[in-house]
Amino acid sequence: MANQRVVVVVVTIVVTIVIVVSFIIGFVSVQNPTTKSGTFLDGVSDKIIKDGDEGITQRLIKEISANSIKGYLKNLTSKPHLAGTPADLTQATQIKEEWESYGLSPVVLNPYRVMLSYPDRESPNLIQLINDKDEIVFSSQAIEKPLRPEHNYSDVAPPFNAYSASGTPQGDLVYINYGRQEDFAWITQTKGFNLTGKICIARYGKIYRGSKALLAENYGCAGLIIYSDPADYAKNGEDNVYPNSEWLPGTGVQRGSCSKCNCGDPTTPGYPSIDGCYRVPDDKLDVFKIPIQPIGYDDALEFLGKMAGEEVPEGWKGTLNITYRLGPGLSQVNWSTRMRISTRNKMATTYNVIGYISGEIEPDRYVILGNHRDAWVFGSVDPSSGKACLMEVARVFGKLYKEGWRPRRTIIFISWGAEEYGLVGSREFVEQFGKNLQDRVVAYLNMDSSVQGQYAMFSRSVPLMYKVLYETTKKIPNPNPDEIKAGRKSVYDTWVERRPRVGRNGKTFPHITRPASGSDFAPFTYSIGVPITGMRYMKQTGGYALYHSAYETMHLMETFLDPEFKYHEAMACVWGELARALSDSYVLPIEVSDYAHEISVYVQQLEDAFGANFTRKNITLDYNFDETVTKINKNNPLHVRRVNDQMVKMERHFIDPMGLPNRPLYRHVIFSPNEFNAYSSGSGFPGISDEMFQIELEETPERLEVVKRHLSVISFLISSAASSLEDVSDFVK
Amino acid sequence: MANQRVVVVVVTIVVTIVIVVSFIIGFVSVQNPTTKSGTFLDGVSDKIIKDGDEGITQRLIKEISANSIKGYLKNLTSKPHLAGTPADLTQATQIKEEWESYGLSPVVLNPYRVMLSYPDRESPNLIQLINDKDEIVFSSQAIEKPLRPEHNYSDVAPPFNAYSASGTPQGDLVYINYGRQEDFAWITQTKGFNLTGKICIARYGKIYRGSKALLAENYGCAGLIIYSDPADYAKNGEDNVYPNSEWLPGTGVQRGSCSKCNCGDPTTPGYPSIDGCYRVPDDKLDVFKIPIQPIGYDDALEFLGKMAGEEVPEGWKGTLNITYRLGPGLSQVNWSTRMRISTRNKMATTYNVIGYISGEIEPDRYVILGNHRDAWVFGSVDPSSGKACLMEVARVFGKLYKEGWRPRRTIIFISWGAEEYGLVGSREFVEQFGKNLQDRVVAYLNMDSSVQGQYAMFSRSVPLMYKVLYETTKKIPNPNPDEIKAGRKSVYDTWVERRPRVGRNGKTFPHITRPASGSDFAPFTYSIGVPITGMRYMKQTGGYALYHSAYETMHLMETFLDPEFKYHEAMACVWGELARALSDSYVLPIEVSDYAHEISVYVQQLEDAFGANFTRKNITLDYNFDETVTKINKNNPLHVRRVNDQMVKMERHFIDPMGLPNRPLYRHVIFSPNEFNAYSSGSGFPGISDEMFQIELEETPERLEVVKRHLSVISFLISSAASSLEDVSDFVK
Repeated sequence: MANQRVVVVVVTIVVTIVIVVSFIIGFVSVQNPTTKSGTFLDGVSDKIIKDGDEGITQRLIKEISANSIKGYLKNLTSKPHLAGTPADLTQATQIKEEWESYGLSPVVLNPYRVMLSYPDRESPNLIQLINDKDEIVFSSQAIEKPLRPEHNYSDVAPPFNAYSASGTPQGDLVYINYGRQEDFAWITQTKGFNLTGKICIARYGKIYRGSKALLAENYGCAGLIIYSDPADYAKNGEDNVYPNSEWLPGTGVQRGSCSKCNCGDPTTPGYPSIDGCYRVPDDKLDVFKIPIQPIGYDDALEFLGKMAGEEVPEGWKGTLNITYRLGPGLSQVNWSTRMRISTRNKMATTYNVIGYISGEIEPDRYVILGNHRDAWVFGSVDPSSGKACLMEVARVFGKLYKEGWRPRRTIIFISWGAEEYGLVGSREFVEQFGKNLQDRVVAYLNMDSSVQGQYAMFSRSVPLMYKVLYETTKKIPNPNPDEIKAGRKSVYDTWVERRPRVGRNGKTFPHITRPASGSDFAPFTYSIGVPITGMRYMKQTGGYALYHSAYETMHLMETFLDPEFKYHEAMACVWGELARALSDSYVLPIEVSDYAHEISVYVQQLEDAFGANFTRKNITLDYNFDETVTKINKNNPLHVRRVNDQMVKMERHFIDPMGLPNRPLYRHVIFSPNEFNAYSSGSGFPGISDEMFQIELEETPERLEVVKRHLSVISFLISSAASSLEDVSDFVK
Repeated sequence: MANQRVVVVVVTIVVTIVIVVSFIIGFVSVQNPTTKSGTFLDGVSDKIIKDGDEGITQRLIKEISANSIKGYLKNLTSKPHLAGTPADLTQATQIKEEWESYGLSPVVLNPYRVMLSYPDRESPNLIQLINDKDEIVFSSQAIEKPLRPEHNYSDVAPPFNAYSASGTPQGDLVYINYGRQEDFAWITQTKGFNLTGKICIARYGKIYRGSKALLAENYGCAGLIIYSDPADYAKNGEDNVYPNSEWLPGTGVQRGSCSKCNCGDPTTPGYPSIDGCYRVPDDKLDVFKIPIQPIGYDDALEFLGKMAGEEVPEGWKGTLNITYRLGPGLSQVNWSTRMRISTRNKMATTYNVIGYISGEIEPDRYVILGNHRDAWVFGSVDPSSGKACLMEVARVFGKLYKEGWRPRRTIIFISWGAEEYGLVGSREFVEQFGKNLQDRVVAYLNMDSSVQGQYAMFSRSVPLMYKVLYETTKKIPNPNPDEIKAGRKSVYDTWVERRPRVGRNGKTFPHITRPASGSDFAPFTYSIGVPITGMRYMKQTGGYALYHSAYETMHLMETFLDPEFKYHEAMACVWGELARALSDSYVLPIEVSDYAHEISVYVQQLEDAFGANFTRKNITLDYNFDETVTKINKNNPLHVRRVNDQMVKMERHFIDPMGLPNRPLYRHVIFSPNEFNAYSSGSGFPGISDEMFQIELEETPERLEVVKRHLSVISFLISSAASSLEDVSDFVK
């Protein structure tokens, strides 16, 4: 369906982009800082101009212990710790005290008063089947049934979707598959459904649940039910589930947020929720006006099994033992579906815990390790498997610090609050301290869940982090005994074997995914352009079935996902070594040419995605800045500092302060999340791919202008990034 | 007319601001970097940790020569050099070659293809008196009459206002005094005039002419005539004028731009005008839709002397020998006024000339000296008196460089193009290289006109530049022999004597004005938050009468304004020494507490301006960061660098990437220009004072919300600035 005019526009401007990348980065070959700066400290051998102690790597590997991590996880998962509750504050305070005991100094609790969302225990959320006499024929379960003796459910919040509106819509049910844009388009355009006033039911999966809700609201649905189909969450059959396996039982429900923007507290968009700050009035808040509620497949069966209407197409079928139908409505005449939703938005205080190990030589350059603390229930995977690793890394760095080791740069450990609601703690923090962070952060290293499976490592990163990720994982022993037997000794070896990707110069590297939204790295990327990485050990594909349910327990982790905690240990080592390399290396382990290569890949993907088909001009990408780095005068600490700054700050250049088209809070033109799927960054230029998607649905002159204009901005920001790598006293060409 | 509710809002939030300033800046007393950083280079005495050679100051004073400057000015004023014309490029190329010969390296021409505006020589702009038979009774002069034998007028562009629309509106004349917001409000509200379709005539003065035009267009006028009244421009009488004095003759006309935004090329708002960039389509351009034209008072007399209607109030009278009347229309029945305006927007190329003296130790920190090159005609004052100084400073620094002197930081000389049209060259440059500049610029030092009179120095600066301005001017000999005789030996002595202001701790300092718009420092302030200063030698009050006319010649300067060029010499010395101090001092000569003090003054002014009246809480401002600076470990170059960066980058914190209310391109919450008077920044918080002004005209709930919200943003950004001064490894409180 590619449109000719659009293609011409894309082609023309994309060519410009590519030429800019090649040409301007090519110019840096002129640079020769060694001659310009001279040698000021010949003969001085002081630690100010020395590299860090690489022996620390082996100390980290030796000290980081699977058993210790297991101990942390047991403690962290002993109680539910939903954001903004007393249990969450208790855990934050404990973490603060532990970090202080390790030697981190100072450790502070950084509070934000924010709008969160909670269900009402007194009036639980229910989905009801109503017959023609207005009687309740069936009501969904109010809470998830306890399935293990140690389950203590007294503090468990019943299933809900955060930021749902409250209300009791009643009407005809319509099944809309995964609730993606193409699903809504098909049912309304091809099948002619009018969704106004309908109760829509979507299955979980493929895209962010908040994106499903956004589409449901836009299409006029009166409410949205989201359920977990066994096709996606009980793949080994409905009788092979938790507590006997890692799969979701019919009583399990996936909680989760439906934040509209995924950018922090909805009452303070773009600004921090600090004392005395301005709050958007209630009637202007960008939150859902319709109720949204998750249910399990036992409950879903009661509704889906009774639906009227045409049978769904093949790709829309799940594996419940029913005939899936589109609706509208139920087969019994005048029966209907009612949602009784009491979920309400409420002001609460969330806390980030922040602990420092001060840098000795460059304390004003930061490497930040972050993991969120809040969990929907026990959170044994999300986020506590990551938190257990964070505690272990903090403990070991604290030990090294007490022994006298000092990193060159400052290391900051952060336990984020209220990530689950929409990256609230991290986003407010970035909003409050963004200018300091833009000046000073070398890298933000995120770990949400650390272990979801045993197949291979997985990472979302900006290209500036590729080199250090590869170098680091090569040093960390492989946690998988079978892989070691097969000759793959490091985390890297299995990663590149199982997730290979052809990269620069036709060589094979481990695949690394683009960052989008989805965890606390996002505000660092899309708001202030700080180089980030996020990582975990994962299954071959997909997540884990018990995600965000009350069954995500210590039992799940110690029985099925990582009984020996060897994968946790490996991930803690990766994290620790990344932090060491970035905080203690004299010259930063970064190759800016990784960025140039990725940009050319994204341009190719943009062409592929939108049908452009043309011969590129003769282009060779030059990577001369990396050569420049090898020529640094290491006797001059200010020279090294300058080149390090140039490498790190290249990322900032992709931030447009004006934001993406129609989305002023998303500012990274390469790595912001997509508009209708916050978990994805599409083809790498989200402002373009979002608009092109809309144009394929309906082309308007305005949209074509937006594409032309935004391509021009991208082209400019790439040239701006290139200019930052020029010889500093000759950056205007 | 202050409204009670508004006052309450202002009071509450203003108190918050003040507390934030005091408290958080107070916190920095905890900082003690010396202990944290240790001493790494004890015993090392290398220039990397040494201060620059202060003896250079005396060399500068000795080398900078009045005669040399006079020679430059003679050459620069030999021909008109309007922006975008061949003469402009010729001058740019000459400057490039001269700078290269001085030793600056590299020197580049930095071109932008931009939309400028020109009159049509074939069809000159005329204002005509039309009688009841539709005959032309009078036509204004097409060009300014040559008054001196050396005047070469073949290349002089006839009088025009840039970015005027073309067209031939005809109708009744209405006199609107200075065309300020209060003038328009009075004539329409108190006098009940409907200005729709009227030809308005305003006198020059008080506010930016573009602001007059904006109001005229908003009030529905069909066209705007702006003239120079003898009351403002021929104060010694109409027979005591150029070429016999410095006052404006009746044939002289003030040209000037009516840029709507004063932010660069109107076809690329917010982005640089580089190859392949997106341009706003013609029908979406933010330019005037009405014709605007300047005339002299000889011509104005022909219209004003024939007007009908009520006599104007006292404050509206000029000194033409007529009875000033409001109109509408002329006393002869059915006579009318017609504008024949052929001024058109046109794409042209403008050039910045950029020359470097590379820093030896910190080449990635810049001190920029800038002056624009384009003149409406000969530009002997504006801008060439400044350009002559720039040439001289460049020559002398080049000489020192050739002798082996090397500044610690990079010094960049820039000759801007197309400033007169709306800061076009500087704005496009800041748009293109803003991210590099934000990272690297220590200070931007602007000089537009250098000498307009002999009374005292005048400066517009951000508070971070106060200290270096005072220190510098104390070193520069007084150019005024009478003042020297009176015991005032330095530029500072006369400055503080003649423009005193009570500042910090009740001491008297020279008055320094807030930056707003008006010259090339503006984009550095309002867009990227770089510390700036602008300065000149000036009359006691006001500008100079021949401003932007064809009579602004070498004759004016060498006969009346600065016959011996002593004031030029002094200003060149000030500029050179500022550049030396900022580029070569090891620790930057900045006191951040100057900012804290000014903010408290602006808060007071905000209260005064809007009638707030309350007792402040007990507030004491602490200035501990300045103490911190005195405790720097000077043996550690990275420590000094860090503290320097903190001081400079404090300014960046006042930039809100979202922009001021309704003005996304103006981002500095303290020092952006006011909306209806681009030359002023009102009471120091333009987003507030603009909105309060509107509220006093008409209060709406929306406007009150805007004030509340924006005060919250200001309060936050001040706390952000304070956080940047915290101990770097403990910045979260």
